[in-house]
Amino acid sequence: MAESTYDQYEGFQVESPATYKTFHRKKFNTKPFGELDVEIQIECCGVCSSDIHTINGGWGQTNFPLAVGHDNGDLEIVGKALRVGSRVTKIKAGQRVGVGAQSWSCMECVACLNDNETYCPKQMDTYGAVWPDTGIVTQGGFSSHLRTHEHWVFPIPDAIPSELAAPMLCAGITMYSPLVRNGAGPGKKVAIVGLGGLGHYGVIWAKALGAETWVISRSHAKKKDAEKMGADGFLATQDQGWNEAHKMTFDLIISTANSFGGGFDLQAYLQLLKVHGKFVSTGVPEESKLEITPQMLNFNGCFVGASHLGSRREMLDMLELAAKKGVKSWVETLPISEENLSQAVQRLEKNDVRYRFTMVDYDKAFQERS
Amino acid sequence: MAESTYDQYEGFQVESPATYKTFHRKKFNTKPFGELDVEIQIECCGVCSSDIHTINGGWGQTNFPLAVGHDNGDLEIVGKALRVGSRVTKIKAGQRVGVGAQSWSCMECVACLNDNETYCPKQMDTYGAVWPDTGIVTQGGFSSHLRTHEHWVFPIPDAIPSELAAPMLCAGITMYSPLVRNGAGPGKKVAIVGLGGLGHYGVIWAKALGAETWVISRSHAKKKDAEKMGADGFLATQDQGWNEAHKMTFDLIISTANSFGGGFDLQAYLQLLKVHGKFVSTGVPEESKLEITPQMLNFNGCFVGASHLGSRREMLDMLELAAKKGVKSWVETLPISEENLSQAVQRLEKNDVRYRFTMVDYDKAFQERS
Repeated sequence: MAESTYDQYEGFQVESPATYKTFHRKKFNTKPFGELDVEIQIECCGVCSSDIHTINGGWGQTNFPLAVGHDNGDLEIVGKALRVGSRVTKIKAGQRVGVGAQSWSCMECVACLNDNETYCPKQMDTYGAVWPDTGIVTQGGFSSHLRTHEHWVFPIPDAIPSELAAPMLCAGITMYSPLVRNGAGPGKKVAIVGLGGLGHYGVIWAKALGAETWVISRSHAKKKDAEKMGADGFLATQDQGWNEAHKMTFDLIISTANSFGGGFDLQAYLQLLKVHGKFVSTGVPEESKLEITPQMLNFNGCFVGASHLGSRREMLDMLELAAKKGVKSWVETLPISEENLSQAVQRLEKNDVRYRFTMVDYDKAFQERS
Repeated sequence: MAESTYDQYEGFQVESPATYKTFHRKKFNTKPFGELDVEIQIECCGVCSSDIHTINGGWGQTNFPLAVGHDNGDLEIVGKALRVGSRVTKIKAGQRVGVGAQSWSCMECVACLNDNETYCPKQMDTYGAVWPDTGIVTQGGFSSHLRTHEHWVFPIPDAIPSELAAPMLCAGITMYSPLVRNGAGPGKKVAIVGLGGLGHYGVIWAKALGAETWVISRSHAKKKDAEKMGADGFLATQDQGWNEAHKMTFDLIISTANSFGGGFDLQAYLQLLKVHGKFVSTGVPEESKLEITPQMLNFNGCFVGASHLGSRREMLDMLELAAKKGVKSWVETLPISEENLSQAVQRLEKNDVRYRFTMVDYDKAFQERS
């Protein structure tokens, strides 16, 4: 198909892994508007570590030599539904809506039919993948607009400001899903490992769900923030014997650790778990591995697992919980621009954000669109 | 305390890890008879790989320099309750009873109070551990008698012959517990990895519990045996693409693999699991480690765990199931003697047994005891 047959959007893109901190404003093709699609005028978008893993090639992104500027940013998008396809039933034009990190699954397999569409063997992420039948690479939220299937478009409750809702749609759901799937709630003791963009959602969701919530961090630097988020306890792994007083007392540990190298002592975490307790990783380190012996697992019969995003059902539940309980994301906003995106990526690499960037002021950046 | 204050039993013992294939008949001290103890005249005893791991020092057994011949064999014991302590309520003198691999736990902690006594932080195995307050090393079942706490003594249903019941008490419970705790039953698809002493129990319990049961083995050599045990399917990992047709179809995999080195491809097994399916190891390799990345776990949100024996409650349930459904252990019997124990250990090291040895004819070997 000739390029001219496609509609075009405008956005801030990265050229290649070698220049992943440099963004350029460009026009790009978008997929044909489908009868189940929603077209969204983007209002704001969160910035997450997945961006860095993707644009620096760390997660093995291979579309770079194929399409310049294929990667167009992030996946925590809030905006206005401009129009909806002829068969769309879940979204109405004019609604404020959000889009997260997933944009497609087969909708037919056992996983899809059981609210497990994020585990569909054919599932596709919001950016850096190729739309079936078109060759068009999916794009993210550093753009003027986005169009995607209604299943992955979520009405945003009025009670949640856009810039606080946006990061819930990837970082938030990444923590919400493993918490609810593994029983976090009243009477349960939950630990969140790492207090970053993901971790801060772990704490506020676990508290909103009613669990006794602890933070496990390297140092004591973030202890006050953890308390402000509602954490009931704080453990610093730099302290000698940090896990001694808590062995076999936790029901669930959600780890956001981005590396299992260096001082990451998995066994010390597993010792915290009650019989058949679970350690679930939501971090996806680029290289390091967990080395596990059955002896590390069979003294308390614990389980090690990992989690990937969450279902539409969970996304709606999460947003409802946030609206109902007044859950507030901790967000720093930056007006979207080439310079500010570069700054956000660089500061994120240094973990210099408490606890999430949301790019805003899209109306100023994309004045011609409306 | 002087040695003479203790009662003595007689048994077949190993001197040290260096001579772990050589057994000597010896007398040894036994712990004082407690008011909650049962004294058992042993009739037969299974032989399991745990013996080899223990007597060759592979599991880090350290009591060797302290007590010559401390290790006295196995932990799958059936015999007659000769007498019971003054406070015993669970067992009557004269009953046919069994003893498994555990002989003590604190009975006070959260684990013990919730039918998780095998995960008690203070739990003690039947042999090679030191009885509290005495310095006496626990002994196993290659002996004339055994005395132990009633909680770990189980009445054997009349329908189960002693030589078939004995191996159920360690190998059997090791497979039964993770099957029932992880939902094996009607409508569930279960794989047993490795068809040895443990694995054969995996198959016959999973079938007795009503699950669709598959065996995963290296080669096709044991396929006919698997079918005779009732397996519904058989996969050989030596076949190219062996897991392709079964990806994301299994609810549960219980692995008895004794090594994770060489060709053990954990990822190929994990790919078999449905969303949030579980891979549970009951094998306890001496050295090799599982190397796990979150990417290996998050595509289907699966869990990796391990299991340790089973509770008294489960032991009684398992024996009842065996009696009710006529479940038969596959056993080769050998009259107990120095020579036959040596042979059993050597053949077990070569996996040359289908599928469990039970040492029998104790009345002949220990004629003076009665």
